[in-house]
Amino acid sequence: MLGMDEQNIESRFKILIATDNHLGYLEKDPVRGNDSFAAFAEILALAQEEKVDFILLGGDLFHDNKPSRKCMHKTMTMLRQFCMGDKPCLFDFVSAQDETFKDAFATVNYCDPNYNVSIPIFSIHGNHDDPSGDGDLCALDLLSAAGLVNYFGRADAVDDVQISPMLLKKSDVKLAVYGMGNIRDERLFRTFTSKKVRMFRPKEDKDDWFNVFVLHQNRVKRGPTNYIPESFLPDFLHLVVWGHEHDCLIDLEQNEEKGFFITQPGSSVATSLSEGEMIPKHVGILEIHPDKQFKLEKVALKTVRPFVMDDIVLADCNLLRRSDEKNVDEVLADKARVEEMITTARNIWKGAHPDVDEDDFPRPLIRLRVDYSNFSTLNPQRFGQRFVDRVANPKDILYFFRKRQATPGDKKAGAS
Amino acid sequence: MLGMDEQNIESRFKILIATDNHLGYLEKDPVRGNDSFAAFAEILALAQEEKVDFILLGGDLFHDNKPSRKCMHKTMTMLRQFCMGDKPCLFDFVSAQDETFKDAFATVNYCDPNYNVSIPIFSIHGNHDDPSGDGDLCALDLLSAAGLVNYFGRADAVDDVQISPMLLKKSDVKLAVYGMGNIRDERLFRTFTSKKVRMFRPKEDKDDWFNVFVLHQNRVKRGPTNYIPESFLPDFLHLVVWGHEHDCLIDLEQNEEKGFFITQPGSSVATSLSEGEMIPKHVGILEIHPDKQFKLEKVALKTVRPFVMDDIVLADCNLLRRSDEKNVDEVLADKARVEEMITTARNIWKGAHPDVDEDDFPRPLIRLRVDYSNFSTLNPQRFGQRFVDRVANPKDILYFFRKRQATPGDKKAGAS
Ligand SMILES: [Mn+2]
Ligand SMILES: [Mn+2]
Ligand SMILES: [Mn+2]
Ligand SMILES: [Mn+2]
Repeated sequence: MLGMDEQNIESRFKILIATDNHLGYLEKDPVRGNDSFAAFAEILALAQEEKVDFILLGGDLFHDNKPSRKCMHKTMTMLRQFCMGDKPCLFDFVSAQDETFKDAFATVNYCDPNYNVSIPIFSIHGNHDDPSGDGDLCALDLLSAAGLVNYFGRADAVDDVQISPMLLKKSDVKLAVYGMGNIRDERLFRTFTSKKVRMFRPKEDKDDWFNVFVLHQNRVKRGPTNYIPESFLPDFLHLVVWGHEHDCLIDLEQNEEKGFFITQPGSSVATSLSEGEMIPKHVGILEIHPDKQFKLEKVALKTVRPFVMDDIVLADCNLLRRSDEKNVDEVLADKARVEEMITTARNIWKGAHPDVDEDDFPRPLIRLRVDYSNFSTLNPQRFGQRFVDRVANPKDILYFFRKRQATPGDKKAGAS
Repeated sequence: MLGMDEQNIESRFKILIATDNHLGYLEKDPVRGNDSFAAFAEILALAQEEKVDFILLGGDLFHDNKPSRKCMHKTMTMLRQFCMGDKPCLFDFVSAQDETFKDAFATVNYCDPNYNVSIPIFSIHGNHDDPSGDGDLCALDLLSAAGLVNYFGRADAVDDVQISPMLLKKSDVKLAVYGMGNIRDERLFRTFTSKKVRMFRPKEDKDDWFNVFVLHQNRVKRGPTNYIPESFLPDFLHLVVWGHEHDCLIDLEQNEEKGFFITQPGSSVATSLSEGEMIPKHVGILEIHPDKQFKLEKVALKTVRPFVMDDIVLADCNLLRRSDEKNVDEVLADKARVEEMITTARNIWKGAHPDVDEDDFPRPLIRLRVDYSNFSTLNPQRFGQRFVDRVANPKDILYFFRKRQATPGDKKAGAS
């Protein structure tokens, strides 16, 4: 007989959801080079600890379309370390595997008798790691050939998108997972408006399935047709996992019109020093219970470097003489500015890691946006030299703008 | 009780040896693009058919140091198709695995409980696929991280090479496999002459082991120190598998001075239209029996495109008028030359594939070397146009040289 806990384990899906891991981002940076890998390793370790049934990724696993050999090697090594093993996978893949996986193996990795998979990963591609070049392959195809990832959701044609779900069953829970790898937004917008995006529902017990959809598109309206309105998505969905937007808006948000919920996990590494990337990074543990009950718990990532951003308007600073560049330099550096931000970052880190030694405090990301109207700018690289041992991004701490110009928090920020 | 055959299987090693597969060679060529893969697939299928214990590769598995994504994908797919499966591996790896495999897994793939390997591959690197770049990795490191290949024989330092063997045991047969990935020849020559290449012998039962050494170096003297003399190798070896030289000289050749035998399998795809590459391509099935008895059977590769080369001296051709380029063109093309060579190639193919339909006859490689002394040359590309549907290399059928010049069969030919 099963204990209470094990009964629980057998009667509901437990899924780790994450997206935009951007492996290899700034990999040659001597300070930040390992950041993307450290965060991903933390995610994989969490999946192991939480004994999830599988991991669902929302695209942009890699930052570069052609990841370096070192990046591929680190990634493959991590995946093999964390996702291979004896833990049995307790759910069944009940739809035809060859309909989802159209390669030479036509099989989900955890059902391949030659691989001992403990945590299957299902991933769509993003715009950073989409299929391209000779053979029209993407980096995920390599991981898939190695049995390390289950790559799905690639449409055969961008102007006629047909999506059949993977049907997964665990005890009484029926889960349909729909996926759509990134398609250029304007293009996909048009395909949607021509009613050429079709999502097929299971023939049997159509209404018994919990329907999850993972996609990697602009959610923010970055132009009239340069995004995908939530209202385009069908109302039979229960949960939408939205990749591509780097802001961590992981808490469930209901679309009132359609009824479904949306979670936007956000990136696990900041690929720009923008407001959206400042929101603390999380991943989700999604549980799906019988009768389409579900809950999403968020887990803060601990390895992520603290990031503090602030604004200053030079014209508002008393005693600042327009002609005195040395004076401006000092004000920005010391007087309650960058120094204060480093302290803030340190306090954030201490709060999240009360047991960690102060010496292990990582250098934070610091961004000071300077409205320099009526002043001249400084050389940001020279400015940063004094912080080289205490800030992770000394070369671009300062960002100069003038009031009338678009600020860094414009429409583009946050998605990548 | 075992039948006679199975007894045999359990009492001797059976190893497929091959080298210089140059996967990805000319992969964008519309006619020859698949040649390297077809030959390698044939080799893998043979290994499966012959139920070998493992495959031993001598380097240059890949043609390019950074193989294209398509090439990596094809390679990984093939390896997974042919080398994963239920066939048990009946030999033991008795030396410390972490001494040979210094990556995160420190294990030979067939002993990793998460992988079901039917045919382990052991490979050194060649000069084409040696470690390089950020991370100092090579393409074999990726295959190794994927559990598809066991990459070994990488020296820690080129001026102090220490080689410990992999010790393998099957019933009464003890096999020590030494490997040394390619090192620049001049450099390695010097390391040898400074007595800084050390090959360690097993501590126990030192004299009971059959000692195989696989290396990837110039065997032909291409300069005073630009090769590795056979006499540099220790006399405790029984068999040397020599990679890098593309000429198939697979039949055992004894070094009288040292006593050991050498086999030089040669490449499985012609990467130059030289004499050496014309020798019919073979791989070897090596059997090692108790008491250090062994035999090497050679197997001709069937998928390899026929390659016919011939020489012509224009000055010797009667009736050829020096000033008449059109006349020269016709003589080379028709009169018993290229046409005749195509027929020869066809006959070679028919001989090797008596059951194959004539329509499936592959376009051959044709090389006509033309001594044009006292004549002027033609445009080889224009010349080849008329053979575009019947020859695999229409653009470079003709190779012009003058008598006094080095001929294409010079010292460099054959190694790559
Ligand atoms: Mn993206
Ligand atoms: Mn992204
Ligand atoms: Mn070579
Ligand atoms: Mn070679």
